[in-house]
Amino acid sequence: MSAIAALKADLEGLQIEDNPQIVRQKSRDFFWYSPVLKQQLEDVTADLVVTPKSEAEVIRVLKACYAAGVAVTTRGAGTGNYGQAMPLSRGVVLNLAEMTAVRDIRPGSVVAEAGAIIADIDAAARAHSNQELRMHPSTYRTATIGGFIAGGSGGVGSINWGGLRDLGNVIRLRVITMEAEPQVLEMTGDDLQKVMHAYGTNGVITEVEMPLTAAYDWVDVLVGFDDFMDAAVFSDELANLDGLLVKNIAPIAAPVPHDYFLRHRKFIRRDQSVAVLMVAPFAMPAFEAFVARQAKGEVLYRSDRASEEDRTRLPPAYELAWNHTTLRGLRVDPSITYLQVLYPFPDQIERVRTMHELFGDEVPAHLEYVRFDGNITCFGLPIVRYTSEARLNEIIRLHEDNGCPIFNPHRYTLEEGGMKRTDAVQLAFKKQADPKGLLNPGKMIAWENPDYDFSSDQVFLFPGLQQA
Amino acid sequence: MSAIAALKADLEGLQIEDNPQIVRQKSRDFFWYSPVLKQQLEDVTADLVVTPKSEAEVIRVLKACYAAGVAVTTRGAGTGNYGQAMPLSRGVVLNLAEMTAVRDIRPGSVVAEAGAIIADIDAAARAHSNQELRMHPSTYRTATIGGFIAGGSGGVGSINWGGLRDLGNVIRLRVITMEAEPQVLEMTGDDLQKVMHAYGTNGVITEVEMPLTAAYDWVDVLVGFDDFMDAAVFSDELANLDGLLVKNIAPIAAPVPHDYFLRHRKFIRRDQSVAVLMVAPFAMPAFEAFVARQAKGEVLYRSDRASEEDRTRLPPAYELAWNHTTLRGLRVDPSITYLQVLYPFPDQIERVRTMHELFGDEVPAHLEYVRFDGNITCFGLPIVRYTSEARLNEIIRLHEDNGCPIFNPHRYTLEEGGMKRTDAVQLAFKKQADPKGLLNPGKMIAWENPDYDFSSDQVFLFPGLQQA
Repeated sequence: MSAIAALKADLEGLQIEDNPQIVRQKSRDFFWYSPVLKQQLEDVTADLVVTPKSEAEVIRVLKACYAAGVAVTTRGAGTGNYGQAMPLSRGVVLNLAEMTAVRDIRPGSVVAEAGAIIADIDAAARAHSNQELRMHPSTYRTATIGGFIAGGSGGVGSINWGGLRDLGNVIRLRVITMEAEPQVLEMTGDDLQKVMHAYGTNGVITEVEMPLTAAYDWVDVLVGFDDFMDAAVFSDELANLDGLLVKNIAPIAAPVPHDYFLRHRKFIRRDQSVAVLMVAPFAMPAFEAFVARQAKGEVLYRSDRASEEDRTRLPPAYELAWNHTTLRGLRVDPSITYLQVLYPFPDQIERVRTMHELFGDEVPAHLEYVRFDGNITCFGLPIVRYTSEARLNEIIRLHEDNGCPIFNPHRYTLEEGGMKRTDAVQLAFKKQADPKGLLNPGKMIAWENPDYDFSSDQVFLFPGLQQA
Repeated sequence: MSAIAALKADLEGLQIEDNPQIVRQKSRDFFWYSPVLKQQLEDVTADLVVTPKSEAEVIRVLKACYAAGVAVTTRGAGTGNYGQAMPLSRGVVLNLAEMTAVRDIRPGSVVAEAGAIIADIDAAARAHSNQELRMHPSTYRTATIGGFIAGGSGGVGSINWGGLRDLGNVIRLRVITMEAEPQVLEMTGDDLQKVMHAYGTNGVITEVEMPLTAAYDWVDVLVGFDDFMDAAVFSDELANLDGLLVKNIAPIAAPVPHDYFLRHRKFIRRDQSVAVLMVAPFAMPAFEAFVARQAKGEVLYRSDRASEEDRTRLPPAYELAWNHTTLRGLRVDPSITYLQVLYPFPDQIERVRTMHELFGDEVPAHLEYVRFDGNITCFGLPIVRYTSEARLNEIIRLHEDNGCPIFNPHRYTLEEGGMKRTDAVQLAFKKQADPKGLLNPGKMIAWENPDYDFSSDQVFLFPGLQQA
């Protein structure tokens, strides 16, 4: 009997899937946003998908896989973009999508199982006490809270609260280790850094406690500009108005809004750049005053004045922003891809201008305003009209040469997608929590190759993947 | 019959007070914080106090006073510090303290009469839907919302939302003009600038619509430091943590906390500088992690771990901060006074250090962190060990010479207390709304003397006050 067959027998009574078609489907995420990852990860698949209903079942799976020496890759809804939840060494995909309980809601906080869908948590918090989570990805309606914490960094709402990594944006995590006898750990404060944005390489998050904030019926607003830099400056000024509550600010260069936002196209000329906004309803009089002051933008659409048909039929503003901008682009033109850029404070506008002028329509700008270490600045998720991997790398280099760090979404490892250095805290915790290195193999270079030279121009290639 | 006697007859049926003792009491505010104003304004009094019960009664008073040519100075609770509500030309004090209705509470906003006490509005908003106002002065339990808007600028909560002047921090005001037929105006957006922080010189605010935010049971925390600059740096770093929700951050130099915070004295050594904080309850684990990271501060007190007796007996943290720091000082040592300083971003810490080293214990530091035009920085309300007006003016000059603008709390005019220039918007509105110049005479120099030279070193002296 093979190891996998033995494991399957060992997990008798749990929800197990071994149909190769379904296993392959549950072994994938949105890695295909990247033409580079698309080629590298196309054939990745697990042997089994196990879907636990409870933490006790998670522990049972981890214990059995540890004994059998089988890899475990944890998955939420598979909405990541860098193969975060893709099993490079086959084995088990641990699918948390059925651990969805929202357990407790208090003023300012919620406790939920890791597989709860973000929009479902918000629906429960709104119904309970008119609260909502501080931030969410554009995949609000499909992503799980555990997947967001393990594989994401911020999103809609980060203009008010910064990123997930910032102290206070996650209150507590419950984490199971991958040992002969899995431990259940409760983490708060700086301990959270051990497992946040670690792709599940050093523990399995089963329960989260997250801060909540006041929920409002956010007004979706599109403001059109003849010149992209006017949209950027408008957005920058709006983001700096301390008293005007918004939830997202995303200026996007023409012709992206017209060409890719198909259901909103009727409001947008092809040569218009658009700031996609979410504004608090009670802030609309102040917002109108700001638009009048600023004098360069034209309000194209606002959901609080839209027809009933438009309100029902049009996607929400957050599904035009962050990586949904890219997604809508890919649906229209599968040849495009994107980058992730930081324009550091306080020179964000000048750096945006430099990049916009350098690349023009080869790299149409898409900015997302955020708080970052106490300052207001912007990330970029520019569209890239992809021609070759060499040119993509050159575009990355030109950003970096101009003081705009890239968080490379064309790499599946933690280090290459992030800060390009070993995260000593996460590595140390992996040594303790996953001594056999069975959790999501191949994603943490520091584990696979402690001597890896991050200053090399090489791309790390996980041996397990070479065999796949 | 005198004009005042005729007016009194004309206002038959309204609540009118003419007992000189009571009129004098209702003609005063906290001007005596300043030894300069104490001398100038000591004898100020009105002829009558009229206390309307409704907007209709306000209109009746304004109409009658306009016809009689009698001055009207509007008053909330009289908690201002610069004589904002003191009647320099006698006449009527219009006391709005009985117009206290909280009319409507919605998600994110409240409508109230101008005389409603700020704490009472919060109590209603909390009971209704766990909401509270974004910001309040340290006189939370006594100040009116209308008085705060007409005479204040920000306070507890400004670390999250900036100041009242910032677009979005006031939604709508209802304003009555001083004309033969008083008009009722509804103002939103940039129009609000006409009457905000105008001391009631160009209209009477009768109703306000203010934004609300989520209410929490804020945890009061005192953190002690051996060195004031460590308290300042700790506060600066805390203020820049985007995900850690606080409501106030006030580092105060030794020996002020020990010497003036009498009921907290048992927690504080005389040589300890203290950061007085309000932290969201669900942020306490993150706060503890920050204190551990920062490693220089010692938590002296936290209300969530205090004895029942301490929780009941000790004043709340906001009554140690802003101008309550000064008030507590004045109770212990009536010879002190204070200043109001802006330490501009991004050099706030270096400027604080320079001033702290320059003045030492003559001007013990007291900072209040705020958002200001999109950045985190601090105001100062330093204690001044007062010796003479000449030395006070020298201390002011030394601040300004070192790039720290002073908002002078020893002046009763709008211009001298603020930006030292004509506010053209407020002046233009006064010409329209108060053509006879009867509203709070003597407070707007631009009205009294259009040719006044603000660059002169003179102090403006209102002729009406000379006669008083």
